[in-house]
Amino acid sequence: MKIAVDAMGGDLAPQEIVKGAVQAATSLGVEIALVGQPSELEAVAREAGLPAPGVEIVAASQKVEMTDHPSSVLRQKKDSSLALAAALVQKGDAEALVSAGNTGATMAFSLFSFGRLPGVERPAIAIPFPTTRGFCVLIDGGANVEVKPRYLLQFAQMGSLYAQNVLGWSNPKVALLNIGFEPEKGTPTLQEAYKLLTASQLNFVGNIESRDLPFGQAEVVVTDGFSGNLILKLAEGLGIAIMDMLKAEIAGSGLDVKLGAYLARSAFRGLKTRISYEEYGGALLLGLNHPTVICHGSSRARAIFNAIRVAKESLEQDVAGKIAALMQLESQGVKNSYDHEAGSDHNRVG
Amino acid sequence: MKIAVDAMGGDLAPQEIVKGAVQAATSLGVEIALVGQPSELEAVAREAGLPAPGVEIVAASQKVEMTDHPSSVLRQKKDSSLALAAALVQKGDAEALVSAGNTGATMAFSLFSFGRLPGVERPAIAIPFPTTRGFCVLIDGGANVEVKPRYLLQFAQMGSLYAQNVLGWSNPKVALLNIGFEPEKGTPTLQEAYKLLTASQLNFVGNIESRDLPFGQAEVVVTDGFSGNLILKLAEGLGIAIMDMLKAEIAGSGLDVKLGAYLARSAFRGLKTRISYEEYGGALLLGLNHPTVICHGSSRARAIFNAIRVAKESLEQDVAGKIAALMQLESQGVKNSYDHEAGSDHNRVG
Repeated sequence: MKIAVDAMGGDLAPQEIVKGAVQAATSLGVEIALVGQPSELEAVAREAGLPAPGVEIVAASQKVEMTDHPSSVLRQKKDSSLALAAALVQKGDAEALVSAGNTGATMAFSLFSFGRLPGVERPAIAIPFPTTRGFCVLIDGGANVEVKPRYLLQFAQMGSLYAQNVLGWSNPKVALLNIGFEPEKGTPTLQEAYKLLTASQLNFVGNIESRDLPFGQAEVVVTDGFSGNLILKLAEGLGIAIMDMLKAEIAGSGLDVKLGAYLARSAFRGLKTRISYEEYGGALLLGLNHPTVICHGSSRARAIFNAIRVAKESLEQDVAGKIAALMQLESQGVKNSYDHEAGSDHNRVG
Repeated sequence: MKIAVDAMGGDLAPQEIVKGAVQAATSLGVEIALVGQPSELEAVAREAGLPAPGVEIVAASQKVEMTDHPSSVLRQKKDSSLALAAALVQKGDAEALVSAGNTGATMAFSLFSFGRLPGVERPAIAIPFPTTRGFCVLIDGGANVEVKPRYLLQFAQMGSLYAQNVLGWSNPKVALLNIGFEPEKGTPTLQEAYKLLTASQLNFVGNIESRDLPFGQAEVVVTDGFSGNLILKLAEGLGIAIMDMLKAEIAGSGLDVKLGAYLARSAFRGLKTRISYEEYGGALLLGLNHPTVICHGSSRARAIFNAIRVAKESLEQDVAGKIAALMQLESQGVKNSYDHEAGSDHNRVG
């Protein structure tokens, strides 16, 4: 199994990307095609552990910048590390793509190179969201600004298959993100999606409000990409802001409080780990013929390692094949029955 | 100046509502029409400080429940404390309405009883959102699930007038909540609203991402009511969840960490005050003929007191009159020039 890694994508590329890839090749038993600009890779080779067994270098002359527009990269960045990494998957030389670079560009090259699964209306980003119980899967995390009710149903189906097969969650509870519990809440699109989800074989538990999202009552939370993006970015910003405010309070306090904060510092570190994206292996683009994992822009080696692990597990569990099979069943008008247990609870969230 | 207060609305009604109203009558120099069910008011009278000078009791036979649907309360709860409080404003016996009850019902009775200002397409909820610099005003906080570009422009105008006149912020920076900085980001509605805001006389600083919201780069943040509601409720839930996670970390730690947390407790209390809605005086429904202030459902006396203060200041500054004047100018196709300083900065956020 070979995974193509865009060595030039991300704020800390290529050093942290290479380190993470080398660690994955060493301990996950996967081969890595590391695609990057040779001079930049050489500069970090020694410190990042290159050359390494199982890591093949593929030379690219360009790289995609964070500010590049997805609409223009397909034409203007044909020899970028990202383009070549996606092309390796297209040609069958690799089976999955991992990048910490420009999200829109990664989606564009994935769609262009290895395309979406038959029956899938819109690929969507499944992304872990930290909760007091661990994390839930939020889908869509930003791929589709506008959606139709049927897309939301498919997001739920894809997210549920991912949760079952990669995360190992049995019969995951699926909820629809909304501004109230009642079926008639929210936009007409959400009202219609509620009906489709209720009629599906999913373990649909109803609407969930954003207030309850951090408490983990649902395992797969379905939303459009606009709302998903708002939610994810707000959570990230608020986590930082709350810690900033707490630091300001401590800085303005007496010695006893400062000593207390020092003594309690390991608890703060523990909290930081709980809400860190680094542990969760990035965002998985679902609905494509091959897995694409998109990492946070500031990913370090650990995040890249975990992203490669997610790509590997997606391949081993054939998530794409299972999504395709489900979509085919649906298109034939046959109610799916994957992993559905009689008498499973359909309790509402809340 | 008399303000009508719904004594039965809110989780802690009537006790905390009455207390807050009595405090306001005592120290803000306003008269209060306290509308509630006599038996319930009597039960808390002594502890809450009734009778009190400046506080008139108005008897209602019903109350609106949190679970009542806004669409049915207008017919079924005609003698509720909320309905009668709104009717006092309609009849000219009071000038503003304050309630910590059912938000949708409060909006419905306000619209039905004293109605929206001429030229205002949709009233919107302006609500304080805590930031590391204090707070910003988010508008719309949940009144309008779906919007048109022109509504968003009006939200910006109303929010800006409120920020200038009630909060005393000169030439407030207005930003549009979106999933990226570029004008072409987001839905077609947002793209069009971006153009309208750019062409307006507002101090429009461009799009703001939710990640940056807690850092206060903009003073008025414009969004649709669906996104606004998601944002507000997520912030509320995350604040609690982060504290829960931190407590769990501390509980699972050694004695030194526990001692540290104990020593640092005043810093946590300070943080809690910073992000507490109680200090901010509730959500102001803008675009109506009279101010309506909607308080958080779990409001205590302090929150009610602050809400009455906001209602009083809105009346003193004639925010409704200023909104009406601006809308009239706009409808005549005249560019408004309120409080606009030559050379004001139009820098982008971020």
